[in-house]
Order: sequence, then structure tokens, then C-alpha cells
Amino acid sequence: MPRTDEFGLIAEFVKPFKKVPPPRGPGDDCAVLEPTERALCLKTDAVIEGVHFTRKTFSLEDVGHKALAVNLSDLAAAGAEPSWALCALGLPAGTTAKDVRAIGRGMASLANACGLDLVGGNVSRADVLSVTVSVGGLVPEDRVALGRGGAKPGDVLVVTGGLGEAAAGLAVLAATGGRPRSSNEKKLARAQRRPEPHLAAGLVLGEYASACIDVSDGLVQDVGHLCERSKVGAALDTRRFPVSEALLSWAGSRAKAAASMLTGGEDYVLVAAVPEPRVTSLLRAMAKEALVAVPIGEVTRGAKVVVDGRPWAGKGGYRHFE
Amino acid sequence: MPRTDEFGLIAEFVKPFKKVPPPRGPGDDCAVLEPTERALCLKTDAVIEGVHFTRKTFSLEDVGHKALAVNLSDLAAAGAEPSWALCALGLPAGTTAKDVRAIGRGMASLANACGLDLVGGNVSRADVLSVTVSVGGLVPEDRVALGRGGAKPGDVLVVTGGLGEAAAGLAVLAATGGRPRSSNEKKLARAQRRPEPHLAAGLVLGEYASACIDVSDGLVQDVGHLCERSKVGAALDTRRFPVSEALLSWAGSRAKAAASMLTGGEDYVLVAAVPEPRVTSLLRAMAKEALVAVPIGEVTRGAKVVVDGRPWAGKGGYRHFE
Repeated sequence: MPRTDEFGLIAEFVKPFKKVPPPRGPGDDCAVLEPTERALCLKTDAVIEGVHFTRKTFSLEDVGHKALAVNLSDLAAAGAEPSWALCALGLPAGTTAKDVRAIGRGMASLANACGLDLVGGNVSRADVLSVTVSVGGLVPEDRVALGRGGAKPGDVLVVTGGLGEAAAGLAVLAATGGRPRSSNEKKLARAQRRPEPHLAAGLVLGEYASACIDVSDGLVQDVGHLCERSKVGAALDTRRFPVSEALLSWAGSRAKAAASMLTGGEDYVLVAAVPEPRVTSLLRAMAKEALVAVPIGEVTRGAKVVVDGRPWAGKGGYRHFE
Repeated sequence: MPRTDEFGLIAEFVKPFKKVPPPRGPGDDCAVLEPTERALCLKTDAVIEGVHFTRKTFSLEDVGHKALAVNLSDLAAAGAEPSWALCALGLPAGTTAKDVRAIGRGMASLANACGLDLVGGNVSRADVLSVTVSVGGLVPEDRVALGRGGAKPGDVLVVTGGLGEAAAGLAVLAATGGRPRSSNEKKLARAQRRPEPHLAAGLVLGEYASACIDVSDGLVQDVGHLCERSKVGAALDTRRFPVSEALLSWAGSRAKAAASMLTGGEDYVLVAAVPEPRVTSLLRAMAKEALVAVPIGEVTRGAKVVVDGRPWAGKGGYRHFE
């Protein structure tokens, strides 16, 4: 019978993670990491019940997976390799050891797959379930972390995966009460519940790109962030967007799919600006590793995001507090 | 008129913090830190409305201060110097720019005072206000991070400040509706609302102690954690506990004060095990820096925590989910 007090719940949570060799590891006031000669990338992000998921449409494994995945996506955008994570759990009354084990299982399966150590965390009572993860990643030696700044007019904008699927998946989950039926519906739901951070693509982009961002709030909004930081504009060509059969079939037409692709959040693919002379080599390097890379537009002078020749006038994507 | 969308709120929050020189800093997907030759200590902890504070008894500045302080206390216990923080805010609907500025102000004043940079964060909608902070600290060169393990029988247990005051402060806040009147009440309330992490004491202890822990859940429970990890026992002598006039006056008697000192949580003082031959030098080094250090017992063989000669049979202190 597992203990359900604070320390019992922590024990349940950490069980599925690979054991971290000392001096690292949970169970002390701090985790301790040996020095490294590589630059450290840091990120924190949370998933909160009722805001980012509902229990009706997400399993607790999904919640654990996604809480880590959304953080790893930012490491991917920096071209960094995941190293460690801290996890703060807010657990409502009535949370069982089984619940906590499920969250841990979902998170550990992603953490173990990408060689990341859970080095510490915290559990607290809370009104609703929340999982706040902080991650550290290391930039490969002799490289510089990618950021939003650095894109230059003439650079080609390249996306590393399908757009709009996670937003369509959210609609599918709402419409089906969390039980997608067709294989297309299941694919879209998976994009929403189990996004796979594009870490391998980020590592390749680190060699070629001038700037990079992950698509968490919606393509137009996130390209806008990249442009703002780089002091450039962008011209996107929706005809070049990669569109999955699942999304096309769900949307009914390419035009309707485009709306989801432009503003749908949570895809956690990467958009990078790549100097034109390096694009061919990049596409070859990505193909060699069986990774997706599709040119979808270019970086321009000015400060506007232009879509299919017209300045974007619609909403940019998801914003909290709007 | 400040913007109250997601990005406006972030701008309000970061304003009072010292600007972080690139390549660090908020505003990109990740913060990026240059390599350092010092070991890195990591910690995450959260303060949540209704669990750790109420708006009636805490100002939002208090909340910002405390969310960072509880994390820094763990760095203090490791003998590390604060370097950076990440902050994830969960903000209920109706949160204003002024609210967010107040949280930022409370946190920044502590961060700036101890030379820590806010390097990134995240804001999200939430049902109740929560502030989840992750911190990184660096161990001084040629030192090893202090931990809970390493205490040896015969070591002297030393505490770095008053015990039981934060718990008494919580009672004062409840009894006065958040408006302490006498100077004693105000002192106790301050211990609860604005704990000062014992960073300077931790740095001195790093030179002398064999093990260390911060008192967050209550002395007996936290000494128990240290004993468990070090595979030792402890004998505490309540007559040697430092007791403030404020606590004594509130409790009415030394015996009643002792109960609060043994099990009251959130004091965020440090308890360290110090090899007996080094105690005199430690006390001298602490006094030289005007820091408190009081021997309150010793490390023993076995696994029990003994208080005034009797094995402890009461509850250990604060536990979530009990």
C-alpha cells in the first residue's frame, strides 16, 4: 500500500525516472550538478487543469508528458540538448498515489527517451492540478544558442513539422468528449495531448539557422516574436505549408486548414530563419536524419508579417488574458 | 496605461529587476548562461494562494518576496550563492498590471539584494494565484555543496536563528486578520511574511559543517530528514534553543514557546551538523560577520530524534496531505 503523504507521493512520482548518480538527484535541499564547459539554456513553463487541459480529455500520463514537452520545445528552439528538469506539482485534495504515478510515468517516458534527469522538485497542495517544470539544456560545444534575434532579410523561413494539428486536436477532443474515433481524429488528438519536442531538428538547425522559435502560441504570433526581436518582417506563403491528410480531412478544405495552421497554438514545431545560401545544405542534413524541414516563406525588411501577399490583420494566436 | 495582456503583464513584472546582460535574460525562448567552473545547485518551490498565503494576511509584495525566499533558503542550506531565478506565475482572471508589479517588486527587492538575476519565466491563467520559482546557485570554488548526508555521531547541531517565530506569526496573522498591532506581533508576522534566507550563514557553514538543512517543515521533522540521510540520530536540548522575546511574550511561557520551536514550520533558518573540533572556529567566524549560531544538540548513533532526553513521539511538523 503506497504512502499518500507528501514524501510517499514524491517517492511514487520519481520511481519511473532513471536514477540520477550523485551528487545530483532529488531528496536533498538542492540538486547539485558538476560544472560543464557548455552554455546552459533555461526555461520554465506550467500546465494547469482547466487552462491547459481537462481530466475528461487528457489522461494523467498525457499531463505529465505535455508539462515536460512544452519546456523541451524551447530547448529545441535554442538548439540545446536537454540535461535536467525540476518539477513542482500542485495536487488537489484526493490525489492518490496512483494519480501521481501516472503523471510521473508520462513525464519519465519522455525524459528517459531524451536523456534528461529529473534532479529535484516539490509537491504542494493546490485547488487544481498543476505541473510546473523547469529545464536546463546544454548547447553543443563550439556552438552558440539559437534565439529569436539574428534573422536577416533574405533568410528563408523553414518549419520542422505540421502546423495547426494541435489546435484541430483540441477541437476534436472537445467534440468527442476526449474519445477520438477515426485514425485521423486520433492523430490530431495525439498532436494536442502528446506533442513531441523537435529536439533533433533543433540540434541540426543550430548549425545552419540565424534565428529560431518554437510555435507554441500560433505561427503568425510566434513568427511575429522572431521578427520583433530580429527587427525584420516576414512573408509567409500558405501554399507551401506542410499540411497533413489528417488536418485536411478534418478541416474539409485547404483554405480552412490554413486558418488553423496560421493561428493554431501548441504545435511545438520549430520555425527557423536560415541564410539563403545554406538552405540546400540544411534540407539535405535534415533529410539525412529523416527530419522534416519545409521552406514556408522568407524574412523581409520592415516589421510586418505578410501572409500570401497581404499584411496580416487577424488575431495572432493564443494569448492568456485576452 | 499599462497593457494587461500576457506580454504587458510580463513587462510589468520584470521592470523592478536589475537588467540581465545578454546572452542571459527574459524575452527569448530560453535564457542562456555562459559556462562556469562552479558546481550548480538547483531548487524549485511554489507558494499558492489558499495554501501558503491568503490575500487578507499577505500583501502581494509579501507573496513575491516569500516565493523567492523559500527557494533561496535551500541554496543557503547547500552553502551556495544565488545566481539566477526562473518564475512561473499562475494569475487568476482580474489580475491587474498593478498586482503583477507588486509581486515583481517584492521579489525583485530580495533578488537585487542578493545579486540574483531573473533570467526567465512564464505567465499563465489560473484559478488562484500561484508563484513557482526555480533557482540556480553556485558553490564557491574549491568547496563542495552541503547536503543532508554527512553528519557523524559526535557532531554538534547548530542553528542559525530563532525558531518557531514564523509559526507564531501565522497564528498572529489569523488572530488579527492580517493586522498585527504590537511590535512583538509585527516581528512575528514579519517572520511569516518576509523570511530572510540565511545565505551568509550558509556560506560560512560551507567551510565548517558536515551536513546542513533548512528548517521549512519544522525543526524536528527537518532534523529527522538530515538524520535519515546521514544514517544517524540526534539529541536536541530545548533549553539551549534561542528564543526571541517576541516569541516568549506571545507564547506566555518557555515551555509553550518550545512547542512552536520544535514543530513550527517556515522559519527558514539553517540547522547544521559541525564536527566538534571545528565548533569554536565556526562560532567565531559567524560572530565576526554578526551572524547567529547557537549549538542546540548533537548528532548521535542510532536513528532517533531525542528531545530533552526523550525519543520524540509527537508529530514532526508541517506535512502537505495529512
